[in-house]
Amino acid sequence: MGRVLVSGGAGFLGSHLCDALLAAGHEVTAIDDLSTGTRANLQAAGAHARFHFEQADVLQPLCGQYDRLYHLACPASPAQYRRDPVRTLKVAVTGTLHALELAAQTGARLLLASTSEVYGDPLIHPQPESYFGNVDTQGTRACYDEGKRAAETLVADFVRTRRVDARTARIFNTYGPRMALADGRVVTNFIVAALQGKPLQLTGGGGQGRSFCYVDDLIAGLTGLMETHSAHASAPTNLGMPQQISVRELAHLVIRLTGSKSTLADTPGEAGDPARRCPDISRARAMFGFDPKTGLEQGLLRTIDYARGALASAATVR
Amino acid sequence: MGRVLVSGGAGFLGSHLCDALLAAGHEVTAIDDLSTGTRANLQAAGAHARFHFEQADVLQPLCGQYDRLYHLACPASPAQYRRDPVRTLKVAVTGTLHALELAAQTGARLLLASTSEVYGDPLIHPQPESYFGNVDTQGTRACYDEGKRAAETLVADFVRTRRVDARTARIFNTYGPRMALADGRVVTNFIVAALQGKPLQLTGGGGQGRSFCYVDDLIAGLTGLMETHSAHASAPTNLGMPQQISVRELAHLVIRLTGSKSTLADTPGEAGDPARRCPDISRARAMFGFDPKTGLEQGLLRTIDYARGALASAATVR
Repeated sequence: MGRVLVSGGAGFLGSHLCDALLAAGHEVTAIDDLSTGTRANLQAAGAHARFHFEQADVLQPLCGQYDRLYHLACPASPAQYRRDPVRTLKVAVTGTLHALELAAQTGARLLLASTSEVYGDPLIHPQPESYFGNVDTQGTRACYDEGKRAAETLVADFVRTRRVDARTARIFNTYGPRMALADGRVVTNFIVAALQGKPLQLTGGGGQGRSFCYVDDLIAGLTGLMETHSAHASAPTNLGMPQQISVRELAHLVIRLTGSKSTLADTPGEAGDPARRCPDISRARAMFGFDPKTGLEQGLLRTIDYARGALASAATVR
Repeated sequence: MGRVLVSGGAGFLGSHLCDALLAAGHEVTAIDDLSTGTRANLQAAGAHARFHFEQADVLQPLCGQYDRLYHLACPASPAQYRRDPVRTLKVAVTGTLHALELAAQTGARLLLASTSEVYGDPLIHPQPESYFGNVDTQGTRACYDEGKRAAETLVADFVRTRRVDARTARIFNTYGPRMALADGRVVTNFIVAALQGKPLQLTGGGGQGRSFCYVDDLIAGLTGLMETHSAHASAPTNLGMPQQISVRELAHLVIRLTGSKSTLADTPGEAGDPARRCPDISRARAMFGFDPKTGLEQGLLRTIDYARGALASAATVR
């Protein structure tokens, strides 16, 4: 049992990670500036005596003695990171630098939450980790994509020059309970629209291929990557669901699972929205048996349950 | 006549830029931390009453009222930037952020010295600005490449969200007097070896294609880009010499021009060394008539003269 720091611990992935680490018996400290995460996400974690929360900003240097640092803090959806693109890039770069400095000073093992966005609009499918990507430095999504690319480079340089024991997870689309309902991701957009009987908006024709990994599987990937003894653990590792469906198929599935009478509507595509994105996970599979098992129907049903509850309590508050 | 700040003003390009701006009648302030630049480079500039030098690090916020900010400060050769890759990335990102903050606060127009390294090992030849590049985030050169990519993104976001008037120059290989003789670039490596009668080391067979722009032409490109009235001035713009020669041809040319008896020797290629790199300069040509005129023989002869003098005075000091 160890002492674990989760930066961005009040976020969607961060809070699920805290729950899993607490269930495994660890002493868990979550830090979050609550700019995109919420205290509500930490309700379950807060019931543990082994859980600590600190409102803090990773743009400030980090301190404390931990065995593991999961560095997840960063705005992570286009709706969030475009609000202040300059701050997003700073958080991605300087926040990672602070996490790495702490790891270098204390000997903690670090995991960077990187992203499939480092591949940009990929020209190779599915994407293996060896693919160098296709990112437009000038795009409105670049603050996140280039920020995370630079963060990956910092990790590689700390591994080489300061002997930090670090891992880099390239996280693909993940969904599940506690997703922010208003942050513009396709799964929540569709579920909310279906539950409210509004049209599901298909951008760019809906033919884009997407893969969706259920949050529990993704969290198992993060902890598996953190704890693997592989000699190649420090190279970036894709985590996500290798099966792909089209956005249009997802819309039909959500309508069926919610029993909604919603229709589909076409809206113009968004600039920089990649046509396809699907991980090659053979590296994670070989290294620590990564195997995302939750089927899309099962995962969506749980997410729909969560969204129904969240919408109902939001309506009550109003 | 205006007030101009040149960060990295004591470097190879920075000092030539100061000379050109002083000759054009401007009030010029150079800042440099002298980590890679030298006071010797500013000997000519220092003779002007309109010239000011300040030893300063762009990792600290910048201040002052200027009409133009040329932001060149960054280690720029592999030998330099690998000494401290983490610092290199910080200078590229945080240094650019500080320059942009000053531009946003004071209304100064800014030019970022970016690099052809944002294209990585390009799969398209010659490289137009629309090419998104092929950079390995994990490579030992990535601290510079990804740092500059992130810097370009910061410029684009400041233009969009804070209405900064900015330009981004993607600078290709440039050579000429004041190049650091020991920084591992092929032109200086070859000239020094030829002048000392040592073998010229060809890495990776010498078949790599390279383009070399003489420094005066490059400086004319920087000032041309800064002053263009084009409506599209803020998008990245390639500056360099579009003609390409092989490294082996360059070696033969240097031997002939120095009258050296040196031979060629083969050494193993360097990881991440791009196979080819050559700019498409049609954008700069259309926007402000960019037209690098100095032939390679003429430029090399001037550079050889400089290197001969530098080696002789180094020998005297010893």
